[in-house]
Amino acid sequence: MRQPAHGGNLAWAAALAGCPPDAIVDFSASISPLGPPNSAIAAIVSQFGNLRHYPDPEYSELRLALSHFHQLPPEWILPGNGSAELLTLAGRELSQLAATTLITPAFGDYYRTLMAYKAKVLEFPVDLTDHSYLSSVISHLSLVPNEGQMTKDKGLLLNNPHNPTGKLFSRESILPYLEQFALVVVDEAFMDFLPPDEEQSLISLVQEHANLVVLRSLTKFYSLPGLRLGYAIAHPDRLSQWQLWRDPWPVNTLAAAAAIAAIEDREFQQQTWLWLPPARNQLFQGLATIPGLQPATSAANFLLVKSQHSPTQLQQKLLKQHQILIRDCLSFKELGDRFFRVAVKSESDNQRLLTALASSG
Amino acid sequence: MRQPAHGGNLAWAAALAGCPPDAIVDFSASISPLGPPNSAIAAIVSQFGNLRHYPDPEYSELRLALSHFHQLPPEWILPGNGSAELLTLAGRELSQLAATTLITPAFGDYYRTLMAYKAKVLEFPVDLTDHSYLSSVISHLSLVPNEGQMTKDKGLLLNNPHNPTGKLFSRESILPYLEQFALVVVDEAFMDFLPPDEEQSLISLVQEHANLVVLRSLTKFYSLPGLRLGYAIAHPDRLSQWQLWRDPWPVNTLAAAAAIAAIEDREFQQQTWLWLPPARNQLFQGLATIPGLQPATSAANFLLVKSQHSPTQLQQKLLKQHQILIRDCLSFKELGDRFFRVAVKSESDNQRLLTALASSG
Repeated sequence: MRQPAHGGNLAWAAALAGCPPDAIVDFSASISPLGPPNSAIAAIVSQFGNLRHYPDPEYSELRLALSHFHQLPPEWILPGNGSAELLTLAGRELSQLAATTLITPAFGDYYRTLMAYKAKVLEFPVDLTDHSYLSSVISHLSLVPNEGQMTKDKGLLLNNPHNPTGKLFSRESILPYLEQFALVVVDEAFMDFLPPDEEQSLISLVQEHANLVVLRSLTKFYSLPGLRLGYAIAHPDRLSQWQLWRDPWPVNTLAAAAAIAAIEDREFQQQTWLWLPPARNQLFQGLATIPGLQPATSAANFLLVKSQHSPTQLQQKLLKQHQILIRDCLSFKELGDRFFRVAVKSESDNQRLLTALASSG
Repeated sequence: MRQPAHGGNLAWAAALAGCPPDAIVDFSASISPLGPPNSAIAAIVSQFGNLRHYPDPEYSELRLALSHFHQLPPEWILPGNGSAELLTLAGRELSQLAATTLITPAFGDYYRTLMAYKAKVLEFPVDLTDHSYLSSVISHLSLVPNEGQMTKDKGLLLNNPHNPTGKLFSRESILPYLEQFALVVVDEAFMDFLPPDEEQSLISLVQEHANLVVLRSLTKFYSLPGLRLGYAIAHPDRLSQWQLWRDPWPVNTLAAAAAIAAIEDREFQQQTWLWLPPARNQLFQGLATIPGLQPATSAANFLLVKSQHSPTQLQQKLLKQHQILIRDCLSFKELGDRFFRVAVKSESDNQRLLTALASSG
């Protein structure tokens, strides 16, 4: 049985571990352990009576809620069937440019979406040797075009914080690229894990930069990958064009209602910001003390770990002996069988992973 | 306040009628009054615990259930976020051909999806004067290419039963076009309203015709437009290509579970097949006796009605005086302000419409 693609791996892991999927402690998906919020589930239940109606194709209520949340007019916001759907639409735009610079290692679906429209891809690697900086220090992109090489006809696609390294690029470090590239798409799927006074979102710059697209997701922060809810923030003209490229009702009624409840759930957001820093620190410190493992500091809810032992062998051992699933990095071709990634979970789950890793060296 | 696009019209109607949207008796959307099935709602509730996981990108369980239902191998079936999503993918394929023949009047989203990829559209009108045939007589498409005009580089897009006329094309009448066109896309969104011994689905022909795509929906029959669930049936190679064109998780976990429950709910299906013929007959006969109205016989759960009085004026009167919403046909440019469409609903709702119409002449 081969390990399947992203999202289908729990059944594979359960078969290998000889247990039901529910029994797997899943560190492979970078999903918050705190959710889904009760408010989102209650909102879903409240909408059963509306399933017999089409969703509002303008998603006016959801856009208004997001508008309040981000302090941006509703027409600058386009909800989608997960940020993956919006990424696909961004890929269609990027493919119309001469080439797209991709910060690597990159999420596999970035390649899929760029290939879907035959975009030309230029890979630009982040510095993987830089494991020593403190998490409070914001690293800088050093994406310098080759001598004499213009980028005005090119696009840039990156995520911030970066997956799988967890690096956070400062707003200022991305700003110059808005002048240099014809289109800049920033996937901020993990940005909401940073509390408001630390986040480096480019959303506040969208109204000044018609060539900027920000993608956001409700998947990770609110533990709702099964619901498919994301949104794009960009110039209204661009979003109107995207709406003509896709079907009129990409977000179902239940997901739209859950999204409104989730983004208005300030208590859940506060809980998350209180939980993450100490839990991530616990996991980081624990990993750093295990011989052969070298975690990278991270601004997100996951840690990339360099391993002297084969991560794929380690993955199998953890599954069979401890029913724990870690994320190998084979799908990131720059990383190969030298790195693995783990989500930050509850203190007790984190400790369970650390104990298992310490005994699997 | 302008009437908004398909799917957003209840709020508009409620404002005009001066009542809450729930109080509107909605004949404008061709949705079964019997659903959603309790089995589908129960399936949704059963999946709340799985929202924290990504959907299986292969949708294996759903494909297996559809495979049993249609007696076709699972790889010939691709679930999508409503058949509208799959129509958009079909539109991308059709745009690669020299032109696409569209049977008109056509659902507005057909134009949107063909325009999204700049397809060339050739319009082919159905005979709108033919209101006299019996509903049991299956009409024939008479789509004859011009003398000397080859269609081997062209596509054909039609729905069957046809919306908004309710005409049913026989399987045999479409068969010749599979030889003549490079790609034939048949939207069977309303086919499940015909009992198994009367339906004219092309699904059984898909394995013999690599150039055939059938689109199906769970929206109308199961009253689930808010959930977004449809599927395409076509050659596995084509469906694999489509999967690369879209994001990996287009159907959310709740919709996938509800779909499995719905298609396995034989009792609900039987109830629908028992309800529709007499209810449709009641509505047809009632409409036919009202002076100035001429309903067309229909194989589906809606009736197209030719009206001597302006249907848009009638629509406003029915809303303001009776809180009843009918579908004007302005979005079908061939029909204009001479036709309206009504869904078949419960016997009491149908009677309410007939009484209101009789007093609004």
